[in-house]
Order: sequence, then structure tokens, then C-alpha cells
Amino acid sequence: MSETNRKRGGRRGRQSSEVAAIPEITPYITRKIPNYELLNEEGLSLIEKNAETILQEIGIDFRYEPALKLFKEAGADIDGERVRFPAGLCRKIIQDSAPSVFEQKARNPKRNVMIGGKNTVFAPVYGPPFIRDLDKGRRYARIEDFDNFVKLTYMLPSLHHSGGTVCEPTDLPVNKRHFDMVYSHIKNSDKPFMGSVTHPERAQDTVEMCKILFGEDFIQQNTVVINLINANSPMVFDETMLGAAEVYARNNQASIVSPFILAGAMSPVTAAGTMAQILAEAMAGISFTQLVRAGSPVVFGTFASSISMQSGAPTFGTPEPSLVLNGCAALARRLGVPFRSGGSLCGSKVPDAQAAYESANTILPTVTAGVNFVLHAAGWLEGGLASSYEKLIMDADQLGMMQVFANGVDLSENAQALSAVREVGPGAHYLGCDHTQNNFKTAFYRSNIADNNSFEQWEMEGSMDAVQRANKIWKQMLNEYQAPELDPATDEAILAYIHQRKSSFADSNI
Amino acid sequence: MSETNRKRGGRRGRQSSEVAAIPEITPYITRKIPNYELLNEEGLSLIEKNAETILQEIGIDFRYEPALKLFKEAGADIDGERVRFPAGLCRKIIQDSAPSVFEQKARNPKRNVMIGGKNTVFAPVYGPPFIRDLDKGRRYARIEDFDNFVKLTYMLPSLHHSGGTVCEPTDLPVNKRHFDMVYSHIKNSDKPFMGSVTHPERAQDTVEMCKILFGEDFIQQNTVVINLINANSPMVFDETMLGAAEVYARNNQASIVSPFILAGAMSPVTAAGTMAQILAEAMAGISFTQLVRAGSPVVFGTFASSISMQSGAPTFGTPEPSLVLNGCAALARRLGVPFRSGGSLCGSKVPDAQAAYESANTILPTVTAGVNFVLHAAGWLEGGLASSYEKLIMDADQLGMMQVFANGVDLSENAQALSAVREVGPGAHYLGCDHTQNNFKTAFYRSNIADNNSFEQWEMEGSMDAVQRANKIWKQMLNEYQAPELDPATDEAILAYIHQRKSSFADSNI
Repeated sequence: MSETNRKRGGRRGRQSSEVAAIPEITPYITRKIPNYELLNEEGLSLIEKNAETILQEIGIDFRYEPALKLFKEAGADIDGERVRFPAGLCRKIIQDSAPSVFEQKARNPKRNVMIGGKNTVFAPVYGPPFIRDLDKGRRYARIEDFDNFVKLTYMLPSLHHSGGTVCEPTDLPVNKRHFDMVYSHIKNSDKPFMGSVTHPERAQDTVEMCKILFGEDFIQQNTVVINLINANSPMVFDETMLGAAEVYARNNQASIVSPFILAGAMSPVTAAGTMAQILAEAMAGISFTQLVRAGSPVVFGTFASSISMQSGAPTFGTPEPSLVLNGCAALARRLGVPFRSGGSLCGSKVPDAQAAYESANTILPTVTAGVNFVLHAAGWLEGGLASSYEKLIMDADQLGMMQVFANGVDLSENAQALSAVREVGPGAHYLGCDHTQNNFKTAFYRSNIADNNSFEQWEMEGSMDAVQRANKIWKQMLNEYQAPELDPATDEAILAYIHQRKSSFADSNI
Repeated sequence: MSETNRKRGGRRGRQSSEVAAIPEITPYITRKIPNYELLNEEGLSLIEKNAETILQEIGIDFRYEPALKLFKEAGADIDGERVRFPAGLCRKIIQDSAPSVFEQKARNPKRNVMIGGKNTVFAPVYGPPFIRDLDKGRRYARIEDFDNFVKLTYMLPSLHHSGGTVCEPTDLPVNKRHFDMVYSHIKNSDKPFMGSVTHPERAQDTVEMCKILFGEDFIQQNTVVINLINANSPMVFDETMLGAAEVYARNNQASIVSPFILAGAMSPVTAAGTMAQILAEAMAGISFTQLVRAGSPVVFGTFASSISMQSGAPTFGTPEPSLVLNGCAALARRLGVPFRSGGSLCGSKVPDAQAAYESANTILPTVTAGVNFVLHAAGWLEGGLASSYEKLIMDADQLGMMQVFANGVDLSENAQALSAVREVGPGAHYLGCDHTQNNFKTAFYRSNIADNNSFEQWEMEGSMDAVQRANKIWKQMLNEYQAPELDPATDEAILAYIHQRKSSFADSNI
């Protein structure tokens, strides 16, 4: 073997082990650090009072007849589509039945996640129609990309959840692609996943596929799918989303009721005003799920960013959304339901310094605020218009760091390390001391993206930036990917269901 | 004027106004947000107890005769260079006299900064021998680069302090470059600055130049220069640094006593062990300044990062140093002295995504921990080996965001914005409503680096990344730079002092 080949082999060998360099692999994070509380009791009460004012005086539009009927029965005031809630009604409905924490089961029980409480679950980017990678640039996403994102997410230990629409498979008809998306999560991963919300029938298809995968009885007792129900902010819920939420709630499956806010357009230009509106919208939407089925699992969600007041373009990673995220997390805790927000959001078109600053400025406040379910935790680019292969890898590395950070400061006798200080003493170094030898393997988070070598070595290795290193990693991972086992009879049954359903109606792009 | 020219003019015009797009310009930040406390009373007491054990049993080496004499008089146990402190001695010395907050005067009183308490002061990168920019790559820094960094820092409203060795002017002799560095801060900026610490005589030169600038009486009553006194961790202070600290303390000028820690090499591989050692070292060094002159201003500093246990290379932006930084900030508050740490640190060789993730992962925890003086807040690259023009600009933009974040959530009636929610109502948008019109100018932080335009517009404008945009900005700023006025007689007197001193001894590179 020539010197060059050996070197190349060594490099490959190192990268391979680096892929799995997360110190402690857990199916989700249980935060040992305190929540960072930016608002005090007085501030939070004020926002809660304002949310009640919105619910009572202004009201929320529900563009869905069955919702109006349920709210009327519950004591709300109905005026056309407008629902106004007597003071405290929503809060009471929610606190009477919504669970504060629930488990989402995965087909591999080791991958089950707890959503709520001190737990944090990271899921990948959701929704982009475009894909970007370093080799081919930006293009419409295809089902092959979707599969690749599911496979990579499966392999990345810092992502706990397979997510949902990791990108839009635009090469498939709109009215049938949900079959392929849900199947991809089932087949290519054994992590928990999300279902379709673009039509109540597609929600039902998701439930049916889950029944085949988990068994019909099992899913009535357990939550096996979680789903993103966006409000049409300000203060509107539409028929599609409510219909899907209804299907899931009826089947004991989880909804994330998420006001989708670009502050300045869908909410006031201030954090306090935005938070009051978000709380009002979330409480109304969550109440609906509890009226459909009391006790069905539900998450207070919010996607909150702001816009450029010059151009109207959405902006990410700026300080104002961090404040909103932090306040809403506290409001959700007071309401007693799990909270979803944050992610690795950015507006940049490429995975450059802008993308990284903005993403870090979102994910760290997400963790310190105590968010329970983090969609878009990796792979998000261009304001959510593109899923990026390289950014998926770079963000996942950051999520590994968040896991270590969330463990807080170890105060055990070993961690106090007085023996090491005694052994080494003034003027020496710790590199070889017993304590270092005993602890170095788990001592510090090991990034597989960061290059910390000398300038000279970095230059010799090709002067690569982080994106170029990430590019090598995801390709190598896809080469090494091995699908988790799936019972062949189950697989066949799911495929048969998909075939039968797909044959029963014509393709359409609506 | 052709269409093209008008467009170009418009772009220039916009960039020009964007340079100063910080919503509220203050000479320093007064944080309205609470400190994020990762450790509780029990954890902090434990680390304080361990620090006392280190001071008492292991001791600290002071390689400076006058320090040993002072400590002996104060009741410490002296064994060669080793100083062991009776329990509580250092804490008592410090708490008896060190100020918890002090003002550093600038030659422009509007630029005075308060160091300590709820205040945060951002200063640029300190120490790199290399310079990097997008056009010329990496090279040894020269005095021209030094001047440029001082000029840019002067123009960047989010940097409150001119800093010190913004880069090493390697084209000047080592034993005389301090004159040119201090003069550059005096001449090219009117923000507060740092002095020389590489030799007690150079510290004295700094003091003499400050006497000419501020007046001799003034500087005995006021702090006009702040200085970085690093410990030789573990547990050693050397003659050079102690000699410089002595000069400054005797003249009522401020020292930042900073254990310089790469955990795993200069301290244990654990956060709790590292914090105990840092606290012990800082308390010993701070005590020295108070024994030289009781009440002289002093800052508990720490530079704490970790190393790669594989290669020994320093690493930045990882979770462990964030924990250390946070804990040390709390320990400094309990000791009752201002605290310095953090910055926009990174190990990357180029201002790429790695640099940005790592920098953001340091600066945000710096702000939430409540750090008072932040060296390396902008421009740091390559583990501190290079000062980067583009990163200076990009980091400064981030610091502007930190200023907004540190203001917390406005809970005024205007910010609650119920009138806006009432005016807009369900299904409409906030873009044109009265509340938005009245607040849009200050509503959201406006980055001058982030591109939030559509993909198409971004492509049309040249598909630039953040570094390319930053490159344009710093060049434009240097073109527009105008020096702040300096009294010609003072200027002449300082130059005469420099000339006389430089002529009095030969050039040397030691």
C-alpha cells in the first residue's frame, strides 16, 4: 500500500468514526439546566390577560362547521365563523384534559420520545420545495432527496425524530405524494415521524398506514404520529388544517397547533403584542383538539420570526424572535402543555456565515427556553425554501453540542477534579495526569465539522471550509447507509394499501 | 444618469445608511434581561470551597519578589515563589477594597464606559500576529492593519471600546511598537482603550501618554486605561505581567486579571474543576492589585476554552467553555468584582459557517451570563492567530443584535399592541395598520450583513455570501472614515514623548 493510499485510508477511517462522535447517545434530551426565564410573573400575567382579551373581545375565525358546533356546545359565542370565548374558557378546556407530557412511540421502541416537561426532541427541516447541495446547487426537490434526508436523519444521533415533509417531493403528484413521504419515514428509518396535514383524507391515510405498522388497537392507546397544524395568523384556522387535526385527535394522535407568525405582517411589530396573539390563537386551536377528544395529545406550537420593514422579506436569527420564543415557552409551561418552536432557522441562500450565525442565534435560545419539540432543527436554508444537505450535517453537529450543554455542569467528585489540581500543581500541565487519562474520552464535545488543526495542516488538506467538509460527510453517510429491518409482511401490507389507494383516484396537483 | 448608474448609486446609498443601522446607539449596554444562572447556590458554594482549598493547600506561584513581600505582609504563607493563602484571605482583601463597578473614561466623555454591574462593554479582538481579508488572504499584520482596525472599531457603534492589540504590528520592533499602538488608539479613535502589558516600562509609557492626553491629576482620580494581565495557568503569575499590573494599579488604572485556560492542558478536563482553578487564580491575582493600591479598579477575567483531546489543538464554540463562562460570571458576582470573558471566538481558518457557529455559540452565552467586559467581541479568527477584516464587520452586526436582545421584552402599553390587534382583526395583515406605521422604524434589528431578499434578487446581485458583503462594507467604511478631532498641542506633546522615548534606546525584537 503506497504512502498516499494509506493516508487517504486513514482520513476515511477517521471521518467514519467522527460521524458517530456524539459522547452520549440518548433517544431525546432531558435537560438538566434550568429554563432561562426572560419574563417574570408580572410580565407573563400581563400577556395572558391580553390573550384573554383577544379571545373574548376580538375572537378567532374557525372556517370549519364542526369546530363552530363544538365551540358552541362548550359555551363560546358564535357569530358566523367568528368564535369569541368567555374569559378562561379555553384555559379551562385545556387544563381539564390536555396532557402536559406524552410519549410518541416509534416502530423501534428504543427511539420512543417523550414530548413535554424537561425533554427536548430535535426533528429536521419541514416543508421546502427546493434542495441545495454543494455539487448541484439549487433545484426542485424530488422523492430521492426526500429519501436521502430521511436516511441521513436516521443516521444522525443528535436528531431524535424523522420529521415530516423534509422536503417537498415535487416530482410526485400533490394529491398522492403523502403516501410516498409517510412510507419513506416508515421504511428508511425507525425513528418517530410526522403525518400528512394537507387534507383530512391524507391525514386518514396516515392513520391507516400507522394502523398497519403498529396495529389498530395499539394506535388507539398510543401516540405514533405527530402533525403540524398551522393557524392562518392572524386569528384564523382554516378547514384543511382543522379537518386534519380532527382526524388525528379522534385517533388519539398528536397535533402541534402552531400560529405561523412573521411579526409585522401576521402579528404586531412588537414582542409583547405578538406573544399575546400567539397565546390566544394557540389556546383556541388546542381547545378544539380537546373538544374533539379530551386528553388527546397536543402541543402548543409557534413559528415566530419577523420581517424586514424595508422589503417585507422574512428575517431569521434576529433578537426579537428569540424574545418571543422565550416568552411563549414560559406561557406554554403555565398552560401546562408541551411547546414547539425554534430550530436552526436562517434567511441565507447558502450555508455561509449568515446561515450559521442565524441558526445558532435560534437554536441556542430554543434550548435555553426549554422548548420540547424542535422542528427545523437541522437542514433549513433560505427562509425555509430550501433543504440543504450540507446544512443538515452542520446543524446536526450543533445539536450534538446542545445535548452536552443541556447536561449542565457535572458536580460529582470526579468532575470537581481536585485530585488533578493536586497532582499537577503550579506551572505544569494536565495532559498526562491520571484524571485527564481517565476522562479524556468523554471530556469535550467532538465536532465532526469543525477544523481545529493548525493553519498549515488545514492548508495541506485542501483549505476546505465547513461546507466542503459537510459535503464529504453526507455522501459518505449515504454510501454507508443500511436500512433498519422492517417485517416483510408489514412492509407488503403497507405497500398494498398505498397501491390500492393510489389506483382509486386520478393524479392531481391540488 | 443611466439606469445602471442609478441602480449602483442606490445600492451604495443603501449600504451607507445600513452601516449605522443599530436602532439605539448607547456607549455601552445596560442589560435589562436577567442573568442566566446555570449553577445554583449549592453548586457555586462547592466551587468556592474548592478554590479556597487550592489557595490554601496547593497555592499559587508568584514569580515576582514585590508580590511575595506584599502577600507575606498580608498574612500569606510564602515558600519560595509559592504563596499559600489562609482560608478567606483573598476574598477578604478583595471585598474590603475592590470596586464592584467603575467607569473607564474616554477622551470623548460620551464614550465613557461603566464596567461592572448590569453593564456590558464590547471590545475587539486582541493579540493576533496575522491578518486575513478576502482580497489578500492571510499575512503578517502591519501597523497599517492595526490603524484600520482601530478606525473601523471607532465607526462601529456596537463596539464600545477600542480594545488593545487589535493585531500585532509585526513590521515594528517589539520593544517600540507599544508606542504606535497606544498612539493609534488615541489618534484614530475617541473610544476608551487598553495599554501595554509586555513590560513594566511599556506599562509606564502607556501611563505617561495617558497623562499627556488626560492630564496628570485627572488620571490619579480616574481610570483611563484598562489592561490585560494573563495568568500563566495553572497557578503561576510571571514577573512581566505582575510588573505591568503593579504599574497600572499604582496609578489607579484597571487590570483584567485573566487566567488563560485551555481546559485539558492548563486546567482539568472538567468544567467544575476548571472553574475552581480559575477562581483561585483570579482571586490571588486580584488580591495582588488591591495590596498594591487598595480600591484600584480590577476585573475578574478569564479566557477559557478547551482542547481537542485527539490533537491537542484548541477548540472554540463548544458547549463546555459556555458552562465555564456562565459559572465564572456568577462566581465573580458573588466576589463582587466586574467580570471579563467570552467574545466571538472560533477556531476556523476562514470566516465560514464554522467561524459563525462557534462565534455565536460564545457571544450569546457571554451576554446571557452577564459578562461585563468582552474582549475579542469582533474580528477574531483562527483561534486568535488572525484578525479578520470581514469577521470584524460580521461580528459587529451580531453585537448590535445582542444589544437589542439585552433590552429584553418591552411591556409598555404601546408594545402590548392590543390596539393593533383590534384594528387588524382575524384574516387581515398588520403591514399598514397605525401601530405598525408608528413603530416600524425601531421595530426589528436591521442587519447590514444578512441578505433577506428573494433568491432571484440575490442571484441578480451576484450571489454573494456574507463574507463578500462584509468585504464591501469595511472598504467603504475606511473610505468614509474621518478621524475624531484631537487638540493639536496634545497630539504634538504625545508625539514628542514618543520620539524622545524611541530615540533613547535601540530597536529590539524582544
